[in-house]
Parts: sequence; C-alpha cells; structure tokens
Amino acid sequence: MGTRVSATRDSSAPADSGFLTLGPIEGSTKHYLSVDDLRVPQRRIHLTNGEHLDVYDTSGPYTDPSAHIDVEKGLAPTRDSWHRPDPIDGASTQLAWARAGIVTDEMRFIAAREGVDAELVRSEVAIGRAVIPANHRHPESEPMIIGKRFAVKVNANIGNSAVRSSISDEVEKMVWATRWGADTIMDLSTGADIHTTREWIMRNSPVPVGTVPIYQALEKVDGDPASLTWELYRDTVIEQAEQGVDYMTVHAGVLLRYVPLTAKRITGIVSRGGSIMAAWCLAHHRESFLYKHFDELCEIFRRYDITFSLGDGLRPGSIADANDEAQFAELRTLGELTTIAKSHGVQVMIEGPGHVPMHKIAENVRVEEELCEEAPFYTLGPLATDIAPAYDHITSAIGAAMIAQAGTAMLCYVTPKEHLGLPDRDDVKIGVITYKIAAHSADLAKGHPRAQERDDALSKARFEFRWTDQFNLALDPDTARAYHDETLPAEPAKTAHFCSMCGPKFCSMRISADVRAYAEEHGLVTIEDIDRTIAEGMAAKSAEFAEAGNRVYLPLETVGGA
Amino acid sequence: MGTRVSATRDSSAPADSGFLTLGPIEGSTKHYLSVDDLRVPQRRIHLTNGEHLDVYDTSGPYTDPSAHIDVEKGLAPTRDSWHRPDPIDGASTQLAWARAGIVTDEMRFIAAREGVDAELVRSEVAIGRAVIPANHRHPESEPMIIGKRFAVKVNANIGNSAVRSSISDEVEKMVWATRWGADTIMDLSTGADIHTTREWIMRNSPVPVGTVPIYQALEKVDGDPASLTWELYRDTVIEQAEQGVDYMTVHAGVLLRYVPLTAKRITGIVSRGGSIMAAWCLAHHRESFLYKHFDELCEIFRRYDITFSLGDGLRPGSIADANDEAQFAELRTLGELTTIAKSHGVQVMIEGPGHVPMHKIAENVRVEEELCEEAPFYTLGPLATDIAPAYDHITSAIGAAMIAQAGTAMLCYVTPKEHLGLPDRDDVKIGVITYKIAAHSADLAKGHPRAQERDDALSKARFEFRWTDQFNLALDPDTARAYHDETLPAEPAKTAHFCSMCGPKFCSMRISADVRAYAEEHGLVTIEDIDRTIAEGMAAKSAEFAEAGNRVYLPLETVGGA
Repeated sequence: MGTRVSATRDSSAPADSGFLTLGPIEGSTKHYLSVDDLRVPQRRIHLTNGEHLDVYDTSGPYTDPSAHIDVEKGLAPTRDSWHRPDPIDGASTQLAWARAGIVTDEMRFIAAREGVDAELVRSEVAIGRAVIPANHRHPESEPMIIGKRFAVKVNANIGNSAVRSSISDEVEKMVWATRWGADTIMDLSTGADIHTTREWIMRNSPVPVGTVPIYQALEKVDGDPASLTWELYRDTVIEQAEQGVDYMTVHAGVLLRYVPLTAKRITGIVSRGGSIMAAWCLAHHRESFLYKHFDELCEIFRRYDITFSLGDGLRPGSIADANDEAQFAELRTLGELTTIAKSHGVQVMIEGPGHVPMHKIAENVRVEEELCEEAPFYTLGPLATDIAPAYDHITSAIGAAMIAQAGTAMLCYVTPKEHLGLPDRDDVKIGVITYKIAAHSADLAKGHPRAQERDDALSKARFEFRWTDQFNLALDPDTARAYHDETLPAEPAKTAHFCSMCGPKFCSMRISADVRAYAEEHGLVTIEDIDRTIAEGMAAKSAEFAEAGNRVYLPLETVGGA
Repeated sequence: MGTRVSATRDSSAPADSGFLTLGPIEGSTKHYLSVDDLRVPQRRIHLTNGEHLDVYDTSGPYTDPSAHIDVEKGLAPTRDSWHRPDPIDGASTQLAWARAGIVTDEMRFIAAREGVDAELVRSEVAIGRAVIPANHRHPESEPMIIGKRFAVKVNANIGNSAVRSSISDEVEKMVWATRWGADTIMDLSTGADIHTTREWIMRNSPVPVGTVPIYQALEKVDGDPASLTWELYRDTVIEQAEQGVDYMTVHAGVLLRYVPLTAKRITGIVSRGGSIMAAWCLAHHRESFLYKHFDELCEIFRRYDITFSLGDGLRPGSIADANDEAQFAELRTLGELTTIAKSHGVQVMIEGPGHVPMHKIAENVRVEEELCEEAPFYTLGPLATDIAPAYDHITSAIGAAMIAQAGTAMLCYVTPKEHLGLPDRDDVKIGVITYKIAAHSADLAKGHPRAQERDDALSKARFEFRWTDQFNLALDPDTARAYHDETLPAEPAKTAHFCSMCGPKFCSMRISADVRAYAEEHGLVTIEDIDRTIAEGMAAKSAEFAEAGNRVYLPLETVGGA
C-alpha cells in the first residue's frame, strides 16, 4: 500500500489527515531507462520465476524510495535543465517545433515511455493528431502524449469544492490518483484558496495539470456570470498560466445562437462552463467573449505552450439528449477554433460527452475527427445508460472502452460518486483503476504495441499458479491479494496448485498441463494428427495417460456454469 | 433493503445466519398485470410527482408483503394449474408447441412481461431463436424467455463449494440475486449435499434454474473422470430432471480430436466440464460419451422440456487464446448438436466465452449464429482484458455489453471475486447490478421497446431535482441514497435544488430551466429563430433575462473539467 508521511492510516482511511502515500506499489520497483541524458521512469514488476515486466509509470518520484519528497519545496524542476529550442515565428510550442522537424527532449522522453520511435511522436504532434501538454512553467512534469496512435490516457479530476477537503488533501489525492495510473489530473477547485491549492498541486505534480479558468473567474465576480468580462477572464488565464497549468478547458464553442437548441432537452445544459457561458450570452444577448477574443487567448497560450482543451459546454447529460443538434453545432464551432489555434502554433484537443448509448458512440469520434482535423478527442465516459447512479464508473467504463477503441485519445474518469456526492480517496482509486481497464482494453483492441504483454504475463502466471505474480501484475495488487486471502489466507496457498473456488481436488489448469505434456509427447498438434492416431488405435497411449494419473481439477473460472 | 426473516442484519452482513431477505425494494411495490387468468408480476416504482414506472420484475413473491413465504414448503406450484397442451409427436416442449402454432400460457405470460405480442414469442421459439427454460417439474417458476429479440437476460451463479456456505445460505443467495435482477440462476454446487441443496433451491426459486450435471456425476466417482460412464451420467441427469432443473450445461462438443488443439494455448482448458471431458477422452482414447449418446440425452430432455445449454468446454481463458481453432472447432460441433436437439423438439442455447479482446467480440456472435442456426447465445463476460483481477465484474461488463449489443441473449455474471475467491452476498449483488447495466445498455443500443423509458424517467428526475425519485429509479436505490447522504444527510437535501458537488450557489440545471423559459417565451427553437432575433437586436429581451436574475449554478456533472 506504500507508507505514509506523518501517518500510518490504512488505505481506506479518508484523506483528511495530511498524509502522503509514498513507496512502490506491491511487487514493483522504480526503474529508469537511460535515453542519452534523459532518465525515463518505468515501473518494474518482479516475478517469482526470475522474469520481470516493465510497465508505463505515471506515479513520479513518490514511488521511488530514493527520492527526497518535500511538499513545501515541491518536486525538482527537471525540465528546466532540458534543451529548449528557439521559438519558431514567435512560437515556443511543441507543435511549432514538431512542424519545424525538431525532435524535442520532451518528444524523446515520450518515445521512450511509449516504446515508439521519436519520429512518430514528432510527426503526430506536427499534424495535430497528438498533443504534449507541457507548460514551460511546469518543469516538474514528466512529459506525456495524448493521441490516438499512442496508449490511451486517463485523467482524474480532483479539486476542493464547497465546504469539503483541504489543500494537503488535494495534494494527496493527486499523488494517490497518479499512483494508480492517472496520466493527467484536472484541478476543478472552486471556493476559497483556489490559487494556493493550485500552486501546491502544480509544484508537486509529476503529471500535466488541467484547469477550467472560468470557475476561478466566476469566483472573482461572486458567482454572477453576467458580471464576467473578457479582461477578468484573460487575467485569470494569465494567473494560471504563470503557475504552470498545462492545459485549460475553454468553452468558446457555446454560442448565443446555440443556446435555445438545448431548450427541448431532457437535461438541458449539464456542463458547468457551458451553463456559465450560456447565461452570459443570454444576459447580454451578445456573442461569447471567449469566441470573440479567441485569437488573443491563442497568443497567451502560445507564450507558455498551454494546450487548449476545447470544452463541450453543450454535451448531452442524458441518453435522450445524445448526438443532438446542440451538441454537434457546438462541435462544428470547435472545429473552426481548432484551425485558428493551430494557425497560432497552439496545441488543441477536443472534449466530448458525456451520456451516449452504445450505438451512437462511434459517430461521436467520426464527426469529431471530421470537423476538428483529427485533434485528439478527450471524452468523459460516456455513460452507456442513465439508470445506475452509484455505479456510473461502470456505466461509463463501458462507453469509455468503446469510444477509446474508436479513436478517443484520453478518457476522463468517473467515480462511483458521480451525480451523487464528492469522491473520497477510495472513490478516486476505483475511478482510476476502472478507467485504466477501459483504456487498456482499447489498447488491446487497437493492437497497441506491447499492450498484450501484460495480459499474457498475468494469464501465464495464473495458469502456472504463480499467485503472487498474478497479484503483482494486476492493476490493483492489494485488492487482488486481499480477495484471495479472504478464502485462503495462509501463505502456502500462494504457491498451491489450486484455488479457493474449487478446492484442492479439482482444477482444469492441471489437466491442461497434462494435455500439453501428452500432446507434445505424441506429436499431436493438429486435428489430423490425432485423427491419424485414432485410426492407428492408441490403447497403449491412453494407458500411458491413465498411468500418468489423469487427474481432473476444476478450473479457476467459476463462471458460466461451464 | 427489505426485512429479513429471523434476523435484522444489515445488507453487508455475510449470508451465514440463515436469514431471508423479504419485502419490496425501496420506493417500489409489487404490481400484477392481469392477462386473462394469468397474474404477471411487475415492479411499480412510485414517483413523488404522482407518476409511476412499471419495470420487469424477477424477484418473485419474496418482494410481495402479501405473499406467505415458507422455505420448508417452497413456493406455490402455480404453473401446475396452467393449461398444458397435448404432446406433439411425443414432445411436450415449448418448441414443439410453438412449431405447431400453439401459444402456451408460458408464452402469454412472457409476452405480458416483455410488453410484446404473444405471436412474436411463439414465432421466435418456433424457429429456435429463443428458448423458454421451463421444466414441467419446476411449476414454481415464473416463465421467462431468452432470445435476441427480447430484453437481454442475466444469469447469476450460486452454489456451495468445498468447505464454504450452507444450504440456507444458498437459498438466500438465490433470493438475493433475483431481488436485484437475476433472470436465471445456476446451481454450481460441488461437494456434499448437492441433491438436497438443489432441492431447496428448486422449490424456492421463482426463476429458471440451470445446472452442470457432470459436476455431480464426478462427485459420484470421487473425482476420477476416467471412472465416469454414460450410464452414471444419464442417471444423474434424470435425477436432476426429476427435481425440475430447467436447463443443463452439457459439454458434448469437447471431442477427443480437439483436445490437442489446446496444447499450445497460454491457459489451456479453463472450463471445468471441458477439462473433465478432455481427461475422459484422453484416458480412454475414445470419443466423448456425451457426444456418442447425445440422441438418448435429447430423449430425456424432451420428456421434461429441459433446455440444452451446450457448453463451450474449450472456451478461451485468456486474451491470447480468444477465437482460436480449438474454440471454433468445438462451436462447429455445437452447431451439429443443435440441429440434432431441435430434431427431437428440444430447445437449445449455446454458451460462449470467456476472455475476448473487444475487436474479436462481434465475430463470436457472427460465427455462433452462422453455425448454430441462431440459437440463443449465452456468454460469460467476456472479459476485455486479463490484467484486473478483483475488478473482473468490470472488465467483463465491457465485453458483456458489447457482445449483447451484437446479439447475445443472456449474460452470465462475473463477480469481483472471479479468479480469486468465493463471492459473498455483497459480491453477488455487485455482480448482478453490474450485469443489469451491461444488459440494459445493450437493450438501449438495440432499441428494445420501452428500454429508454427508465433512463428518461431517471434523467428527468435528476434534472428536476427529484432526488428520491432518482434514487428509486436506480438499479440500486439503497447505494445511490447512501452515497448522496454521505455528503448531504439531511432530509431537506432530498428536495433541494442543488447537489453536494457544487453547493447551493451553482447549478447548471437551474440555468437550463431559465434557458428553457426564455426560449419558449420568445419562440426561439432553431438557430434561425435566434439569428433573426440577433438581427433584430434584442437588448430588451436580454434585459428581461437579466431581470429574471440570470442565475448560474454548477451542474450535477463534476466530471470532464467541463
């Protein structure tokens, strides 16, 4: 579970005691790939058969016992020592450099992490099909890439809200979320201390951080959207840019003319930013200041290399509202804005729904790619049904896996508390693990290089009864081990050639091993081989097998009545 | 949560105290449709706005306070009083009657449950695209149908194993599983008291019960598969048939010639029945007695109207083994057996995998329908990845939703304990709810009549802040309410026009209501309408809106940074 600074609470304890989770995940150690002068972190899972498997590692120095962690000081600003190329036509962005044929240190770092060629990273960024959210002012981050040609990524939302949680809690939530695999986090804090909370998170976050600046802007006008102005919003963006925010959600596609299209919906406008901008547009009966001043916004983003996450303010909030005119009208506008942003050398990704029935999921990706020059799609869920509050991490994982298979590059997680309450640290972990499942399932379906290595390693361990390896190769070793130990606590059970489902007497894994030995011994590989042996008659052979003690064991699979 | 006979334990208590969960689900009452002389149970969800929604009800009399429950006596043998048509050519099966153009009481009951025409039920059964598992000796059951044209069904496995659990626990597990929506249950008991356990379950089960006779047969020969004989197996089948088992898994497709095809797999044979038959075939080097005596088996099944669930003994146990030669070779044989069974007037469904990556899921349905005359497909999961033990209810829900959308008629649930341990009652509930999500998501995607009614009702309640209705319309009202109350316990919060995520100040639902009023007041429906008003200039109108107090609230959606 890792150890905790100034606390020894168990992992199910609420994150309210200022502790920090440190130390490696069970069965793993931090391993660094040396790429010239770059140190690229990986998680090395050690197996009992002497082998090991290296996997992508999002957890930063917090899982490295040799790293010195000081939350007050923050992480080391590693990227400050990296080479930064000269601006291209005034643009110091990964997009501008990629277009100029320059492979940056960030690209080399990412290529090593993903196990791909650096040129693939550069070319995908150059055509805008992938983004590298990396604000120059966030040197503590370990660069990562969001694009359909790379591993599907997962974002976790944190952020204090109303009365709950404290600053140190938010830092621990970030550490906790990245420990389990969050590739980026979004700080959605509202209320007091927004600036300070964000500063703590920025300085301690090894992953890119995203925000929604309109939330803080609204705080500055006491929650009255009509009082929002471009100047106030711009200053807020600059304030956050200076702190190092890597990507920002901007709802510049919510146009006055689209607002009435939501009137007939079952759930109207469910996006915070979308509703704020809709209210502003109606109050002034003028076009969105985000839309009108988009070019100025691009100039600011370009200075820091902040990535746009163009928000879907009119996304559907229910199955009934999916893929409607309001949603796609806004998406068309996001397409126009994508072209503008890229003309400024600014990186762009597009946010997507929300709530979508399975048969309408693929269309979302098709339309987004068509209208937005294949800019990376970043969706939340979507939920495949509305009828399971308290299980929306699952309803949305179904949609998330499918939309990622269709080409979505990053998935925003959903926790069991969605629609009901505020996620605690257990909810955050469940949300992240659930979304790693969706993302990995999509990587498998897309044939992502090396994705299946981990499935094969775990299944091999399962087949060979290497229980400890099966646990340690799992996305959540602690829970897998705990579930196993509920039935078979004793340590010997970790090596036993049977499992709790069937007891020692039956196990199909053993008979499978017998089958393998038998087949190899007699050179039986194809149906033809065995048809031949049948023709020859093999009483002797069957006798051999009988002597071998044709044991039968019931399998690890208890499902399916099979 | 319902009350419990001779116990007041809370729902998280292990099912080890002989209690039974009785009483309606929160916010619902039992409602009976009268169809001529038949009483068809439905669950009526009562809403605070005076409306109600009737939903499919699998829970039997246990959720009806007016019903007298006596586990010793069992449920009332209702179907004994129904009209049973004469045999057709010696066959007293739903299939034979359907072919003869006869609409049975079971078909009328099902038509009312599904909200479809009885003729659709008859015709789908007649062509073998749907089955009605209803052994004449199980008169306590409420008939249901398994077929792609009807609501996707969910099976829950129960059954004691090795050292754990008691008979009364198994009955409560059945009551508990059907309470949350299990359409059928399978008794996979092994070890002692198999016969008695099954008798208790049969006499108290309102849903069809399935078994895998080979398990009990193997017990009779002390677990030595080589000692199995056709006669011993046949007698076991008759023993179970007499008790009223509605469908039986038979691994008659595991042929000697296919066994070596599993030798090169990562996880060999993971099916219990499959491994047992493989061992028998190798031990005797003879063809499977299930295959050789299949006609005799059909004669027995026909007498009771037992439905075949042809088992996939060579199903893949890992992503690496999916859709391989062994799996499809067996499926081809299941196709032959399907034709034979139907020629005897016996109903058939086909079991499917298992572990399958998303891009190989649809092919499983296509091949099954092609080889097996579109016999209903009954799959477990499949798991879309192997790397998340302890979360396999989720990895498999992804595959289950997709394979159901592709045409699978029934899904066998997977619990969080899959591959690790024995499910307790909490695991059973989580498994059932998770699979109801997958099944319902598929119903939506397939455009199943009335499926979206529940989504719309819940989303409407959410939009109108009818919290209690939102809870009660959920698949799991208790957990939804509990999560909400963690943050906002007070009863007034149930009617508050805001939620815990954003606090009282912000909520997009309110602005959406304002937008709706505004748009309707000014006849704004299309983009053209508002373009016109923009052209006309609407300072006045915007002023009106400003007076209306352009409130902005943050939404119930906290995800996506939007």
